[in-house]
Amino acid sequence: MAQTRFQISTSGPGLYEFTSVVADWVAARSLDGLLTLFVQHTSCSLVVQENADPEVQDDLQAFYHRLVPPTSDPSMSYLRHTYEGPDDMPAHIKAAMLPVSLSIPVQSGRMVLGTWQGIYLFEHRNAPHSRRVAAHFSA
Amino acid sequence: MAQTRFQISTSGPGLYEFTSVVADWVAARSLDGLLTLFVQHTSCSLVVQENADPEVQDDLQAFYHRLVPPTSDPSMSYLRHTYEGPDDMPAHIKAAMLPVSLSIPVQSGRMVLGTWQGIYLFEHRNAPHSRRVAAHFSA
Amino acid sequence: MAQTRFQISTSGPGLYEFTSVVADWVAARSLDGLLTLFVQHTSCSLVVQENADPEVQDDLQAFYHRLVPPTSDPSMSYLRHTYEGPDDMPAHIKAAMLPVSLSIPVQSGRMVLGTWQGIYLFEHRNAPHSRRVAAHFSA
Repeated sequence: MAQTRFQISTSGPGLYEFTSVVADWVAARSLDGLLTLFVQHTSCSLVVQENADPEVQDDLQAFYHRLVPPTSDPSMSYLRHTYEGPDDMPAHIKAAMLPVSLSIPVQSGRMVLGTWQGIYLFEHRNAPHSRRVAAHFSA
Repeated sequence: MAQTRFQISTSGPGLYEFTSVVADWVAARSLDGLLTLFVQHTSCSLVVQENADPEVQDDLQAFYHRLVPPTSDPSMSYLRHTYEGPDDMPAHIKAAMLPVSLSIPVQSGRMVLGTWQGIYLFEHRNAPHSRRVAAHFSA
Repeated sequence: MAQTRFQISTSGPGLYEFTSVVADWVAARSLDGLLTLFVQHTSCSLVVQENADPEVQDDLQAFYHRLVPPTSDPSMSYLRHTYEGPDDMPAHIKAAMLPVSLSIPVQSGRMVLGTWQGIYLFEHRNAPHSRRVAAHFSA
């Protein structure tokens, strides 16, 4: 068993890949096992997504921004938790919809990711943030 | 390794926090490890959300009610599984969209939750229910 | 600890149940433990859903098709990643929204699924695919 924490700096909404730092940490275990990631915030998410075409990441961000627009949008005027600005409550809504934890089997120190799968921190807030992702590996 | 089951009584749609009963059970293990929760139903969900301002919980419920309205809403007339009433199929849709399982690393008997993170049962049905959440802890 | 991989053939969008092959593999372990499933693709998902009325599965597919329509729909014209056709980017969007991994406690070789819960591969692409789901069991 091993545990660590990853720190990811964000500068506005969108996807931030951190596959390689996770892969390096898992490789150091060089065993079969299970990796679990858990994001310690309620306004960003973890997603596994295609890492080939960067347009996929832009399109994901664009879709979720339209599905859950800022509270400055008239269609969202029924929401009340707006203390931290128009991106506050939509961030919580997206954090409920998209994964807070991910579990990925590991074989001989390699996560069994598909060919095009990368691991991303999906930031939902406008302001820069430093995000923490707790990691657990069990052999 | 240890396993248990939590029982959560609900009285209509919304978020029901049960962080403290989980924390107590995990504390009794007093070890590093991994906690996994799994909800044994297809019409409610598990979410990790902000536990500071109760308006967040109300807003979450309001958003998902609008995103997936009851089948009595004309926009949902294409749905066919309505045996148990207008909140039946929307509950299944929300149960697919929001987590059925959560995994949270544990350090020295404490879940590594962020400052504002609480664990909630998100009830999607109108009638009162007794919900079961299976828990697994591995050291 | 044990690991395997399940192969699921799909022929268009919708839910494909594979509960029984998972149950058989877990039963062969005949122990308490934790099962984790991870789908190795970014255009399909894993869901736990009702396995009683097949209309639930049709309704789920219908709802998510309306929530995230093909890029041939004018409302989706802002999306740019359309290389593989109008079902390409919507599949990625649904793969972010619906689970990529699931964890289910196991007692004496049986998953603690609720009475009506089944495990499904949710295919988001139109063309036939062979999908891989990695499985990990830890006692």
